[in-house]
Amino acid sequence: MVRGRISRLSVRDVRFPTSLGGHGSDAMHTDPDYSAAYVVIETDAEDGIKGCGITFTLGKGTEVDWSREGRGAPGDSGCPKCGVGLVGQAGGKACLEVTCGHEILQKGQVGKKEREKQMLAQGYPAYTTSCAWLGYSDDTLKQLCAQALKDGWTRFKVKVGADLQDDVRRCQIIRDMIGPEKTLMMDANQRWDVPEAVEWMSKLAKFKPLWIEEPTSPDDILGHAAISKALVPLGIGIATGEQCHNRVIFKQLLQAKALQFLQIDSCRLGSVNENLSVLLMAKKFEIPVCPHAGGVGLCELVQHLIIFDYISVSASLKNRMCEYVDHLHEHFKYPVMIQRASYMPPKDPGYSTEMKEESVKKHQYPDGEVWKKLLAAQEN
Amino acid sequence: MVRGRISRLSVRDVRFPTSLGGHGSDAMHTDPDYSAAYVVIETDAEDGIKGCGITFTLGKGTEVDWSREGRGAPGDSGCPKCGVGLVGQAGGKACLEVTCGHEILQKGQVGKKEREKQMLAQGYPAYTTSCAWLGYSDDTLKQLCAQALKDGWTRFKVKVGADLQDDVRRCQIIRDMIGPEKTLMMDANQRWDVPEAVEWMSKLAKFKPLWIEEPTSPDDILGHAAISKALVPLGIGIATGEQCHNRVIFKQLLQAKALQFLQIDSCRLGSVNENLSVLLMAKKFEIPVCPHAGGVGLCELVQHLIIFDYISVSASLKNRMCEYVDHLHEHFKYPVMIQRASYMPPKDPGYSTEMKEESVKKHQYPDGEVWKKLLAAQEN
Repeated sequence: MVRGRISRLSVRDVRFPTSLGGHGSDAMHTDPDYSAAYVVIETDAEDGIKGCGITFTLGKGTEVDWSREGRGAPGDSGCPKCGVGLVGQAGGKACLEVTCGHEILQKGQVGKKEREKQMLAQGYPAYTTSCAWLGYSDDTLKQLCAQALKDGWTRFKVKVGADLQDDVRRCQIIRDMIGPEKTLMMDANQRWDVPEAVEWMSKLAKFKPLWIEEPTSPDDILGHAAISKALVPLGIGIATGEQCHNRVIFKQLLQAKALQFLQIDSCRLGSVNENLSVLLMAKKFEIPVCPHAGGVGLCELVQHLIIFDYISVSASLKNRMCEYVDHLHEHFKYPVMIQRASYMPPKDPGYSTEMKEESVKKHQYPDGEVWKKLLAAQEN
Repeated sequence: MVRGRISRLSVRDVRFPTSLGGHGSDAMHTDPDYSAAYVVIETDAEDGIKGCGITFTLGKGTEVDWSREGRGAPGDSGCPKCGVGLVGQAGGKACLEVTCGHEILQKGQVGKKEREKQMLAQGYPAYTTSCAWLGYSDDTLKQLCAQALKDGWTRFKVKVGADLQDDVRRCQIIRDMIGPEKTLMMDANQRWDVPEAVEWMSKLAKFKPLWIEEPTSPDDILGHAAISKALVPLGIGIATGEQCHNRVIFKQLLQAKALQFLQIDSCRLGSVNENLSVLLMAKKFEIPVCPHAGGVGLCELVQHLIIFDYISVSASLKNRMCEYVDHLHEHFKYPVMIQRASYMPPKDPGYSTEMKEESVKKHQYPDGEVWKKLLAAQEN
């Protein structure tokens, strides 16, 4: 197995000025610059094998900023320290017994070959978040939605939660455009408290959303359970998980019936193993996994996990789909391939994490070409 | 209010080689070096006013280390990034309404003057964790316990959770020494899963512990509720909170009846404000607050919060006490004062955070005198 020794480790602060176009804006993050701490471990092996790691962050990249209200910044999808510090808490405390996980994987063998073929031919169903960021004008929303329909998308997510009248208007526009049959999801990015979430969503129920995502603080398991109890009778499920840092949190969300759609995040959960344990628990509780993606490289990473989930664990596509956001893929050496609104299985070896050296150089903060120009412009 | 501008900010990595004596060892941390990220903000104000901040960490200071099992390190009491990243999630989602908090504080006015006088005369009751770290030999345990009894201590905490037979023997020693009337608490530092915690503690119930602290993962609110349900009938309460990063977690612990003793940590909760909101919620749910302390400077900080709690919020000392660990105080400019096993109210202005410059210099890692010697010795 050992083919070389680690010869070099580099960590670089890569940022993309996404805030300039309102991309990625939601009820909590009004002008995020999608960023990443990018780590490369090189070896002296003959074949030059190396490892690449990525951590998606928002706003100020790997810095920590305090929000205007004097509270902490909304959790970036994985400050490496946070991720690591927290994952440690989970040690051996999840409910899933080894035997149980083994049983699930055994059952997953049945029909595995067929599902693999099916994935290779059709891909894994995706939904798009790219049409309806909160900062987009109605015109942009309409234009992007029309284009997405033309491209074959059938599942759409709209950001809500900042202003009810705006939400009603925007949801009306999008529902009118996509028609009654296509799938609409809503995402509040933690904006509400518990009663507010129920009240607000009762007013948006007429637009038939499949789910409301992150209606309140992601730490509030019991709050999600209360919201779920109130909204499921209206036909609205609760989706959450992108901020959940270990399997102990997911265990409780499942135990408390606090969610109907479980959203793993490939970077937030520490390591592939932690993600796998959550996939197995979701199977046990019969809750569909619909991964969070977007950001920087999250689509690239999570496609591996969700396709594995279908082939070896869930064996079902019912109510299942993976988020897709159409930006920043051009910076990756092995970018995701979307065909007919589905993730096509990646064929290159590895976790699709490697970025193009040219992109990294250009977007390094604050010395890359892109930032030098932007920062200089700010000063003038 | 503005008396100057920030003229200088320094951050220093201060570490104390506590692992050399087994101080601070428990079921999760076998050889911790108590450490701190120490921040000083200086101003150009005429009176030279400055601000000092501290973040207690374990083991490798502000680095992050992976435990032997390949999982993350048990959560240090506040990697600054973790603390900040997480606090942000709490935004406006706690159950406590402003009116409710206001009411509690209004009621707290009654008898306030008397309680203030009482504190100044008698201090706030403390318990000691210094006698029974897991890494101490039975002889050391006996010797420290005898000394503590001589010094007037009446409440003792023992670390448990690594080996049941060891625990039985150590608990027997300490209960025999302190007698049946004095208070004994136990602390498992998250070592168990849920059924294990119930089983293990059923076997230690005969030593009459007031509480078992951190029986399982601090993220597992529903797990704590289950343990609590099983152990309260045996006369054992559940204590937890030192790893809880915001008021949303405490809200749920209270809602789920998952604890009988609530342990705030002055550094883990981001800011004094977040601590105050938890004090108010605990009052609302009538759960006593018994702060976590020890580490580096935690006693110095939390004494302010708990004495405020008594004077202005809880107005009660029933089942209430503040942790005390007798080490590293000599490095602080305004160290805590313990008299008759009680915290005597600090009389200097500020939050007692300032360290002695000489101590910081000596213990800076890796260039301070203490570490230069230790690291050189390791190399030989």
